[in-house]
Amino acid sequence: MTHPRLTPLAETLPATVPFIGPEAQERARGTAFRARIGANESGFGPSPKVQAAIAAAAGQMWMYGDAESAELRAKLAEKHEVSAQNIVIGEGIDGLLGLIVRLWADKNAPVVTSLGAYPTFNYHVAGFGARLVAVPYRADRESLSDLLDAVKRENAPLVYLANPDNPMGTWWPADDIQRFIDALPETTMLVLDEAYGETAPAGTLPPLDVTRPNVLRMRTFSKVYGLAGLRCGYAIGEARTINAFEKVRNHFGMTRMAQIAASAALDDVDYLQSVITQVASCRDRLAQIATENGLAAIPSATNFVAIDCGGDGAFALKVMQALISRDVFVRKPMAPGLDRCIRVSVAPAAEIDVFERALRAALTDARG
Amino acid sequence: MTHPRLTPLAETLPATVPFIGPEAQERARGTAFRARIGANESGFGPSPKVQAAIAAAAGQMWMYGDAESAELRAKLAEKHEVSAQNIVIGEGIDGLLGLIVRLWADKNAPVVTSLGAYPTFNYHVAGFGARLVAVPYRADRESLSDLLDAVKRENAPLVYLANPDNPMGTWWPADDIQRFIDALPETTMLVLDEAYGETAPAGTLPPLDVTRPNVLRMRTFSKVYGLAGLRCGYAIGEARTINAFEKVRNHFGMTRMAQIAASAALDDVDYLQSVITQVASCRDRLAQIATENGLAAIPSATNFVAIDCGGDGAFALKVMQALISRDVFVRKPMAPGLDRCIRVSVAPAAEIDVFERALRAALTDARG
Repeated sequence: MTHPRLTPLAETLPATVPFIGPEAQERARGTAFRARIGANESGFGPSPKVQAAIAAAAGQMWMYGDAESAELRAKLAEKHEVSAQNIVIGEGIDGLLGLIVRLWADKNAPVVTSLGAYPTFNYHVAGFGARLVAVPYRADRESLSDLLDAVKRENAPLVYLANPDNPMGTWWPADDIQRFIDALPETTMLVLDEAYGETAPAGTLPPLDVTRPNVLRMRTFSKVYGLAGLRCGYAIGEARTINAFEKVRNHFGMTRMAQIAASAALDDVDYLQSVITQVASCRDRLAQIATENGLAAIPSATNFVAIDCGGDGAFALKVMQALISRDVFVRKPMAPGLDRCIRVSVAPAAEIDVFERALRAALTDARG
Repeated sequence: MTHPRLTPLAETLPATVPFIGPEAQERARGTAFRARIGANESGFGPSPKVQAAIAAAAGQMWMYGDAESAELRAKLAEKHEVSAQNIVIGEGIDGLLGLIVRLWADKNAPVVTSLGAYPTFNYHVAGFGARLVAVPYRADRESLSDLLDAVKRENAPLVYLANPDNPMGTWWPADDIQRFIDALPETTMLVLDEAYGETAPAGTLPPLDVTRPNVLRMRTFSKVYGLAGLRCGYAIGEARTINAFEKVRNHFGMTRMAQIAASAALDDVDYLQSVITQVASCRDRLAQIATENGLAAIPSATNFVAIDCGGDGAFALKVMQALISRDVFVRKPMAPGLDRCIRVSVAPAAEIDVFERALRAALTDARG
């Protein structure tokens, strides 16, 4: 039978996925991973208080979530010292990125990002038929000057920048980011992805300025808060800019559970602090493991460490595959230059122990 | 400062919401509702076994959900006797409807629905710049023949039909729906919304036929399963049609909690059956309450009852407002003809008691 015709744009899109998830890999391999340290999740888990709040809320799940996420937005507004009108909640940063592309990047519009940066953003850009303009990293950092040049050259309506960066874990100090913001054309929307902001050194995040209509600051409960499985992210921005999301977002798309859990997570400041401490100490340990194996860890402001395997992309790929074959789930950057690294997420000691043992053997394999 | 330019389409869209949620109403009123029977949720709640599964899974929420929802899809495939390739899981039917419009309705394309049918579908049609063609109900049912005529006249790529219907609760027997499907042009995609399928009389849902590329059967865990707050819906269809969602869906958008809860809900067949029984008996009670107040209940196959208030739209609006002022959350159809009704969701007896007492007073108010 004839298939109904997809839109011309949809017809051109591949059926694809930005990442192969660990479960899909486990099914393909027929074996479970012993260490799940590839997706920058937080193996330290959500706070026990958050877990209690989730359990207590189970019976309420018959009710749709509050379409305005009012309680959560009020708490976030207080935390960030902005108004609730400056915050939109979404189904993770991923969901919000899709809406941002849809709102600000028309078909064929140039959208600037770094070559090798967040694949899910690129997926949405392609999905709405916009045109990706990708600027290479310099010295393992996103190049602010090259991004700015590309924005101006292309007259781009949208630019993506992650600080700290994923997949390299590097970062720019707040002052450099602020200069980038100040130099940006007012007609260009900056998506400043700060998913890893909490684990960065002090002085990495520029002050929030919600009078500026062309900056969206993206935050998430998926990283240090340990709630990736509940999909809750948010954008902070100028009120009219934030209000634009009301045009297209799936108003009743937030789960009530995410609203409740995120709200409880904000209350447990001590737990957040303890995770941040554990993340920092695990980064150190990962760097030490790298050194002990003759490899170099890229300094990281995030909950993962990119480890330079000391060879080319093909060699790092072999290392990653050898780790996976030892039931250690890690990922790696794919862009030229960055691809000499593997990327390892922080985790509780037991998983890092597994990684440590597996890495030695994996390197032997890859070299052999 | 200048605002970055929205896309020309986004510029034309209003910041709007398909429904005002009960929480937003409570905030505006400054009072909580005593009976939450306006959003066709299931006040009977999720199964105790599902609640236990949710509580047990709290500690796992640091992991992103499986991007393929493989376990849940496998269970649904078994239940429906289709392949997992015939099923796509999404963030409620609402989320999937957005993707469907995006995939099959290009800008300015005519999209057929019934006048007064699901506002969230209409919201997505507008949101992607397609053109809504709305066919009036006949005798409180969606008119299959008029829908078909409109599809053919407009050469529409997409048509929406809910069976059983929302907001009226009416339904067509499977044979009529099957004839509608058979008569549909192969180039037209039918979104057959069966959110209320479980509470319909036997013989309402036509057999699944996953060889047919132009029919998507929409199901949800938000109604009888009592999991609206976790956003989990799915579409059943022909494999290549289902695969099209891989082009645009937010692959990691499903919460792990929804996957776990929905899976547990499928296992508890007894609970499902008990809810279906309670829904039927509550519909009867709502009909009786209507009769005792001199009103007529529209026969319903859903988890709500549309009650004809016996006057015009303005009168029914007064009744609804008088109920709301008595802390009873109900809604009403708005389209001409249908608007003589209010719509009341089934619920445990205590809430229906509140409704019963409030209705008498609300009618006195509205008539006075």
